[in-house]
Amino acid sequence: MISKPRTYRLAVDGMGGDNAPKAIVQGVCKACEAGDINILLTGDQEVLEAELEAYPKVRKYIEIVHTSQAIPMDAKPKEIFDKYPDSSMIKAAEIVAAGQAEALISAGNTGALILASAQSIPRIKGVHRTGLAAVYPTRNELDREDIFSLMLDVGANVSVDRDHMIHFALMGNAYSQKVTGIEKPLVGLLNMGSESNKGGPKYIEVNRILESLPLINFYGNIEGSDLMKGIVDVVVTEGFQGNIAIKTIEGVAEAAMGLGRLAFQKKLIWRLGMIMLSGGIRKVKKISDYQEYGGAPILGLEKLVLKCHGRSTPRAINNAIKLAIKCVRDDLVANMRDSINAFEREYTRPDYDQTGYQN
Amino acid sequence: MISKPRTYRLAVDGMGGDNAPKAIVQGVCKACEAGDINILLTGDQEVLEAELEAYPKVRKYIEIVHTSQAIPMDAKPKEIFDKYPDSSMIKAAEIVAAGQAEALISAGNTGALILASAQSIPRIKGVHRTGLAAVYPTRNELDREDIFSLMLDVGANVSVDRDHMIHFALMGNAYSQKVTGIEKPLVGLLNMGSESNKGGPKYIEVNRILESLPLINFYGNIEGSDLMKGIVDVVVTEGFQGNIAIKTIEGVAEAAMGLGRLAFQKKLIWRLGMIMLSGGIRKVKKISDYQEYGGAPILGLEKLVLKCHGRSTPRAINNAIKLAIKCVRDDLVANMRDSINAFEREYTRPDYDQTGYQN
Repeated sequence: MISKPRTYRLAVDGMGGDNAPKAIVQGVCKACEAGDINILLTGDQEVLEAELEAYPKVRKYIEIVHTSQAIPMDAKPKEIFDKYPDSSMIKAAEIVAAGQAEALISAGNTGALILASAQSIPRIKGVHRTGLAAVYPTRNELDREDIFSLMLDVGANVSVDRDHMIHFALMGNAYSQKVTGIEKPLVGLLNMGSESNKGGPKYIEVNRILESLPLINFYGNIEGSDLMKGIVDVVVTEGFQGNIAIKTIEGVAEAAMGLGRLAFQKKLIWRLGMIMLSGGIRKVKKISDYQEYGGAPILGLEKLVLKCHGRSTPRAINNAIKLAIKCVRDDLVANMRDSINAFEREYTRPDYDQTGYQN
Repeated sequence: MISKPRTYRLAVDGMGGDNAPKAIVQGVCKACEAGDINILLTGDQEVLEAELEAYPKVRKYIEIVHTSQAIPMDAKPKEIFDKYPDSSMIKAAEIVAAGQAEALISAGNTGALILASAQSIPRIKGVHRTGLAAVYPTRNELDREDIFSLMLDVGANVSVDRDHMIHFALMGNAYSQKVTGIEKPLVGLLNMGSESNKGGPKYIEVNRILESLPLINFYGNIEGSDLMKGIVDVVVTEGFQGNIAIKTIEGVAEAAMGLGRLAFQKKLIWRLGMIMLSGGIRKVKKISDYQEYGGAPILGLEKLVLKCHGRSTPRAINNAIKLAIKCVRDDLVANMRDSINAFEREYTRPDYDQTGYQN
């Protein structure tokens, strides 16, 4: 029972992530110190209560919702409803679905979170596919205040239809508007070539429709080599390709770090060089640090769901909560709903099916 | 007219690439000094003759085949037959198709080379799609002698059927065997998850079939984050995904280099650090240098076609020619033909269509 009601209410999965529950509780408490929020924290009552003892000042803003189970990070998503019906994640999704909280935050198993959310929380009218977004650092050639770009879908689906891709563009656009404050974010379509006729019938169609939508500031097709440049704010893609792209970025970045470590071990002069560069490396690490950003959204549902990195620290959780507050305050979901409605109203099939593509 | 016949005959596009014809001619002449080869060099007779004047010792091994046109690097592939019928690239492909040379090497427009080759040179029996391969440097976790992996298809097709993906695996396998000397190269399937049930029906099928083929040493699915590790020798993928993956690798590597340059400009201490590291950076550059490798093959045709980097230097061309000699000497195409035949014979449809996937 919350003894001190405040403006916003968020549900947080207290047992999700590699550092749960300690890091989650610490992040939640930090957020409650500054933010105008209440937190519904799901998980083992006794364990969470014990963790919360260290933060008596904010205890009154937090309500524990007891569950007897937690979904392991390596659980098979499809099995969660059978095996972990009374889990902290599913409960948190149900709380949000029931309107008791306005957003869901979890650092748990990604696939499980997508399913748990989709199972409880209704989709925005007209949306048939939720999109998992990823937020990644870029070289920021657009010279934005923040250097991150948003890419979706990165794996909630394998492949989707043309209209679902348009929905991803509209939802990513709305999210980017709210989070970055940019009125007309640049939206790019990830493709195997920059020309508008690349990628087969579906991509040619998506390109054409995005080009024609007044709601979207469309850059055109972008290629894999453009992703790190930061020449668009939102990258639209399908799950299979988006998953490969985002994981390739991770893999190459890791390889580069590995080479740095190798240089450090190999030769005294290289080690000295690395030490001299360490200020620069710290700076790079800082800008490419997922903790700065907090969480990546699952878009398409009537409530915001934020997926935090499995290795989330208290700072990452705190940042994710700040992000969620911002989205709730600025009514992100309503904005997405309006965009989708406008599109569905104005672009009825016969109107824009010009090239005979079968959706 | 070649005045000194030797064992192998290769056709080289004398006008393709950013540094043509100078770098091409220089590379060709270098290769003729050491290799047991004749070169049929296509392009403008007068221009090439002038370039060849600097290499009188090897002139007798080279025959110029005059063409009045060259295909620009930014030409639209589909237009080449109408606009550049008498081009150095199309002529080189025709020479190879006519059996006057055993392999084709070009540093020209990639899409044009795929089309020009496919138009003239017959496909291997049973093969319905050619695959463009890319060769990229890895962290070499398998501890191979060379640190490169082969990925195909990276863009000759948008998307292909199940059997075409199996063909890519068989052809990539044969190529890797010949080039690296590894008897049983490890083959991985690029997917959105490592589990065998990922990626939708087609990928589940491809995984299952590759697992069952005695010809293939199958690693299983690999993810984008595995690409740079070098845990497989051959990566099987479809053109759209492969294109995004290989270009993302390029893009992230460029971004990392860019950060290095930035560090160099920003602060004296960072500059000193970079200078101290320069030995290490040179070493990294060397191992990731496309020139070391020479060219990337277009597989599936009855003759080997090697695509060299557009910015190829004489050394890159020389290395590509060495690679082509090796493949011709070891009868790569016959090896691919045998693999495909064996597969088509032993795995007839009713036999291996177990999961109801429609090709």
